[in-house]
Amino acid sequence: MTTIAVIFYSGTGTTRRVASAVSAGIADTAAQSVTVEIAGEDIVQGRWANDAVAAQLDACDALIFGSPTYMAGVSSQLKSFFDAMAPRWYTQVWNGKLAAAFTASALASGDKLNCLQDMNAFAMQMGMIWVGTGPRLTDGLNPNGFYLGAGATAGEPGELSEVDLAAASHLGRRVAELALRLSDENT
Amino acid sequence: MTTIAVIFYSGTGTTRRVASAVSAGIADTAAQSVTVEIAGEDIVQGRWANDAVAAQLDACDALIFGSPTYMAGVSSQLKSFFDAMAPRWYTQVWNGKLAAAFTASALASGDKLNCLQDMNAFAMQMGMIWVGTGPRLTDGLNPNGFYLGAGATAGEPGELSEVDLAAASHLGRRVAELALRLSDENT
Amino acid sequence: MTTIAVIFYSGTGTTRRVASAVSAGIADTAAQSVTVEIAGEDIVQGRWANDAVAAQLDACDALIFGSPTYMAGVSSQLKSFFDAMAPRWYTQVWNGKLAAAFTASALASGDKLNCLQDMNAFAMQMGMIWVGTGPRLTDGLNPNGFYLGAGATAGEPGELSEVDLAAASHLGRRVAELALRLSDENT
Amino acid sequence: MTTIAVIFYSGTGTTRRVASAVSAGIADTAAQSVTVEIAGEDIVQGRWANDAVAAQLDACDALIFGSPTYMAGVSSQLKSFFDAMAPRWYTQVWNGKLAAAFTASALASGDKLNCLQDMNAFAMQMGMIWVGTGPRLTDGLNPNGFYLGAGATAGEPGELSEVDLAAASHLGRRVAELALRLSDENT
Repeated sequence: MTTIAVIFYSGTGTTRRVASAVSAGIADTAAQSVTVEIAGEDIVQGRWANDAVAAQLDACDALIFGSPTYMAGVSSQLKSFFDAMAPRWYTQVWNGKLAAAFTASALASGDKLNCLQDMNAFAMQMGMIWVGTGPRLTDGLNPNGFYLGAGATAGEPGELSEVDLAAASHLGRRVAELALRLSDENT
Repeated sequence: MTTIAVIFYSGTGTTRRVASAVSAGIADTAAQSVTVEIAGEDIVQGRWANDAVAAQLDACDALIFGSPTYMAGVSSQLKSFFDAMAPRWYTQVWNGKLAAAFTASALASGDKLNCLQDMNAFAMQMGMIWVGTGPRLTDGLNPNGFYLGAGATAGEPGELSEVDLAAASHLGRRVAELALRLSDENT
Repeated sequence: MTTIAVIFYSGTGTTRRVASAVSAGIADTAAQSVTVEIAGEDIVQGRWANDAVAAQLDACDALIFGSPTYMAGVSSQLKSFFDAMAPRWYTQVWNGKLAAAFTASALASGDKLNCLQDMNAFAMQMGMIWVGTGPRLTDGLNPNGFYLGAGATAGEPGELSEVDLAAASHLGRRVAELALRLSDENT
Repeated sequence: MTTIAVIFYSGTGTTRRVASAVSAGIADTAAQSVTVEIAGEDIVQGRWANDAVAAQLDACDALIFGSPTYMAGVSSQLKSFFDAMAPRWYTQVWNGKLAAAFTASALASGDKLNCLQDMNAFAMQMGMIWVGTGPRLTDGLNPNGFYLGAGATAGEPGELSEVDLAAASHLGRRVAELALRLSDENT
């Protein structure tokens, strides 16, 4: 079955709420989602390790990454997961999988694009195919103008607008639909 | 028939040579390519215009953009073409098409990544799906480490290494193969 | 006398209004400003040329660049000016001058950061010292979170908020004050 | 006395060797340097903490950041230090300090620019003034074309070229000389 992983770090619960909206979008399709939240206890001296989770990701058709934008970039916690994937850069086992990303921060811009670029650059090194937010104009889903990935704004932790949550669901659906097209093609 | 456009600007002929290598990669597949070179005479007061070319691109399944890296970014000539596509941002007629990019400059790094990011950011605004260079490790195709797109180095105009040309062909082939998978799926 | 150039392209007048606010900030200091607006008629076949303007810039202590964010990056018109500065990359006559940037677009984020990165990357190639927006938290000057440069939002052409204009003036003042410190030092 | 901190993470010793070259450049001037290497044991559950080091940095005139480029961006270890500086974003105690950066990776490009952009974006949020590599053409110090910061290439851990080490020293000297000009001005 076509499976999409939503893998993220959340410090205050805001990004977790966005991740749930992404998963809800996947659930609108024939694909299934698995959710992986990066846990602090899996990070020892700055390096993430969890073989079971990594193996689970290897089996997915698409990976959607999520992180708060911390100090202008991806959170160190999600980055510690990225860094731990270095052996998979050599084996290129994620080559051809779909990738996408979402982020959240307190201010409307807040260097979210730089955070999305970090997640994109990682995915490119892994040989993945990138899915952005796509056309969200006519239905007002993209009021702040994020294209490389979804960018949500939360003035207070967890205080997300309906439109940002809808945009996150839209991204999940968009990735799932493309993953289904590509996996159908193989059957 | 699945059709891939290779659309580029070339000042000295270097980027044109890379574009030819990209097209050669497409020719290894069942897809066909069309080549569009941005012409200076189509740029009036900094804005490109050529309705016939734009309509030709609308009919393609994938677009591969190419530009020299000039002063740390995409050449103004290719940018004038991007800027002229603004009406298509509203209509999103390129939504779901594949996109990829290549660049060339005199030095190995030379801010090529920033040029590739420019082309990527444009494609994301258009709703396109992005294809990077993918796994090119075992066959030595990526000695300088470019992932978002192909990055060729030419100390003198047109003086390209065989490996850079092979990497460009690899990218063309990779985009064409994915375009074929996606269009087969629709038949 | 310490002189700051504000050099920009404006399509609809929005960026010109931001440029005026930057100049107003410079006018709050002992430095003087000169304003250069990129004119379409100076761009022939995608390449800007105006020797008198270029010589004027050579004589300045700092350059503040401005552009609308068009299709996710710097406008082709300002880029055509950047590309025309290539001979100055060889001579490095701008080495050690201060640089800063501002942009405007219709949406709060709208890939403005990518546009600012384009202007920053150009300045770095020229050997310039970069001044960002700095601390603007306590006085509410940075509601959308732009740091590499000032980012204004105009839903309709020219419809700028007071806070965005104040932020632009703040940037002009900040650059001028640092330029004055550095030129005083030489006397 | 004018003091420049060189603060970095090194996994294999390569980045540490570049850091030493940066410090050697500072030592050519009247400024002094302090060296801070991010230690894994200061990172607990992905978050760095070391109050003594942070206070030491607060007292410096300039900070030069260094990190290997890991999986296309700044190492999670240095990022965990950046993330821990969030309270200083509110107080803006680093406002007006100079900042610069260096990175190292195995391949000539290898997404080093993205890593440098991460360090730059952090510094901009902190209100710092950015110093790039500047003019290094006539003396052959910049063969691969890095401008936002110094980018060294090490095929094997620690195997750095003389030119990359000289470029790192050049950057240290350049930052120190500007810091001296700015602090002289205050006396």
